[in-house]
Amino acid sequence: MNKITSLFHIKYPIIQGGMVWCSGWRLASAVSNAGGLGLIGTGSMHPETLRDHIRKCKAACGDKPFGVNVPLLYPEIETIMHMLAEEQVKIVFTSAGNPKTWTPWLKEHGMTVAHVVSSSKFAVKCEEAGVDAIVAEGFEAGGHNGREETTTLVLIPQVRKSTSLPLIAAGGIATGEGIVAVTALGADGVQIGSRFALTIESSASEAFKKRCIEAKEGDTMLTLKKIVPTRLIKNEFYQQVEIAENIGAGVDELRILLGRGRAKKGIFEGDLKEGELEIGQVCSLIDDIPPVSEVIQALIRDFDNCMKRLYLFRITDSQ
Amino acid sequence: MNKITSLFHIKYPIIQGGMVWCSGWRLASAVSNAGGLGLIGTGSMHPETLRDHIRKCKAACGDKPFGVNVPLLYPEIETIMHMLAEEQVKIVFTSAGNPKTWTPWLKEHGMTVAHVVSSSKFAVKCEEAGVDAIVAEGFEAGGHNGREETTTLVLIPQVRKSTSLPLIAAGGIATGEGIVAVTALGADGVQIGSRFALTIESSASEAFKKRCIEAKEGDTMLTLKKIVPTRLIKNEFYQQVEIAENIGAGVDELRILLGRGRAKKGIFEGDLKEGELEIGQVCSLIDDIPPVSEVIQALIRDFDNCMKRLYLFRITDSQ
Repeated sequence: MNKITSLFHIKYPIIQGGMVWCSGWRLASAVSNAGGLGLIGTGSMHPETLRDHIRKCKAACGDKPFGVNVPLLYPEIETIMHMLAEEQVKIVFTSAGNPKTWTPWLKEHGMTVAHVVSSSKFAVKCEEAGVDAIVAEGFEAGGHNGREETTTLVLIPQVRKSTSLPLIAAGGIATGEGIVAVTALGADGVQIGSRFALTIESSASEAFKKRCIEAKEGDTMLTLKKIVPTRLIKNEFYQQVEIAENIGAGVDELRILLGRGRAKKGIFEGDLKEGELEIGQVCSLIDDIPPVSEVIQALIRDFDNCMKRLYLFRITDSQ
Repeated sequence: MNKITSLFHIKYPIIQGGMVWCSGWRLASAVSNAGGLGLIGTGSMHPETLRDHIRKCKAACGDKPFGVNVPLLYPEIETIMHMLAEEQVKIVFTSAGNPKTWTPWLKEHGMTVAHVVSSSKFAVKCEEAGVDAIVAEGFEAGGHNGREETTTLVLIPQVRKSTSLPLIAAGGIATGEGIVAVTALGADGVQIGSRFALTIESSASEAFKKRCIEAKEGDTMLTLKKIVPTRLIKNEFYQQVEIAENIGAGVDELRILLGRGRAKKGIFEGDLKEGELEIGQVCSLIDDIPPVSEVIQALIRDFDNCMKRLYLFRITDSQ
């Protein structure tokens, strides 16, 4: 019995993270149909666009479950939440906000709720708020990130100690070996972003996907820490931020430099120079753009092979 | 057969990281006598002090092997290296420099050589230099750190792909579960710092040890990035650095602020306000100051229990 597969009624405890400009109905339904849980990322959608994606996802998934990721800072949050109820969405992952604000309402409307945290302190708040599962996301994750910079290796045992809720590890996981590693640390399942952002079904631009699979170690960095810490590929825009910060730019100057729509420009429109190229550190380990079904098969195959290798590992020669 | 235990002729593939002001002969010999590999950290020792520690360590270890960690930027590096040969030291871990400079010489003098890296690019250089093993250390590690900020979870598979040499994972590992996790990622053994810094045999001050075991998530941060990235506990000194950096302080101003002897002041003398309190992010998971023998026993016990738990884990309900 796995706490995550039984909670969401899925085959594998593999969640596809909701990602701006990557995870529409096409990616989410592909993941759900392959035995994981696909999430539509609402962060980059107008409400009516989201409704369209939900309906298409439902049609594409048949009886397979899927979910929606909602950043709680979303400006039209009331509209979004009521639409999820109208459209009878069953699974909601919330992030970037207080889990107490919406969890009771979502639960009353029959939804299963998970919330994304970057510390055990917030994991405890999630439990108090009544969420069904916790996603704990480490420093290596792409896009918006926590301020404490706790890595997945340190964060997962810390959150595991603080709560008995089903625990989904996120940040830095793109392989079957990675799934084994976080399982050892106490996770019940995984949320994977970058690996799914770089698939055929992801709605990111080809230019973005190509740049990401070419990325090497050290090519992403956590930046914009004075506004909201964001991990992205170091490009011309990143260099501008670095220069500004090095000479002491404040929040207001950085906000002006950031402007609006940079994530869309980078990820969806493929402007590799001026856009925000949000992706996880683990993209250095990714070098292809396969269909989702192949990703899931490889994750399971490599998980099984890694487990077999561990069975044979002995920590002393004498054992 | 384990590549690390057979390379160093030890019982467990557990190396105690060489740490300034923590790892003299007392800590190193305790680790070696408990079945791991203790390292004397030369970074904080004058050459004649080091000779004294080597002789005491040898006497305390009997037939058990021990090693010495040498940062290659050490000002009296020639003196140190010749002393290691004179004292017939058998195992040397080098760090903070080019592995090509000293590895051939050390090998000619019959020593087994490991080198610490924070990227696969440098791991390849190590292999070319002829080292016997690689220590790959992630962003979560305490003290001096790499510039690319690659976390252990991402770094280990990356280094594993780049070399077939025996691979020792470091950074963020303080538990048996952590050892299982990095083993899954491809490591053959582990180097553990913080957990051993916070033992009875560590030569750090009681005030430092106490502050570290009280530390919570987010209490350490990687700072001083314009000089050499260093992970330490956020205290008054850290705040001074942050303020200076926020208003655009350059390398020269930061060097003046840092001054000399801050690590000694913080770790050895226990000045919690003005000293550098170098420790790994994983200190948030550590809450006691036991003897080394108990640490090793707990690591092995928790490793075994975690492996048993993994044997029972199934990634699908149907398996």
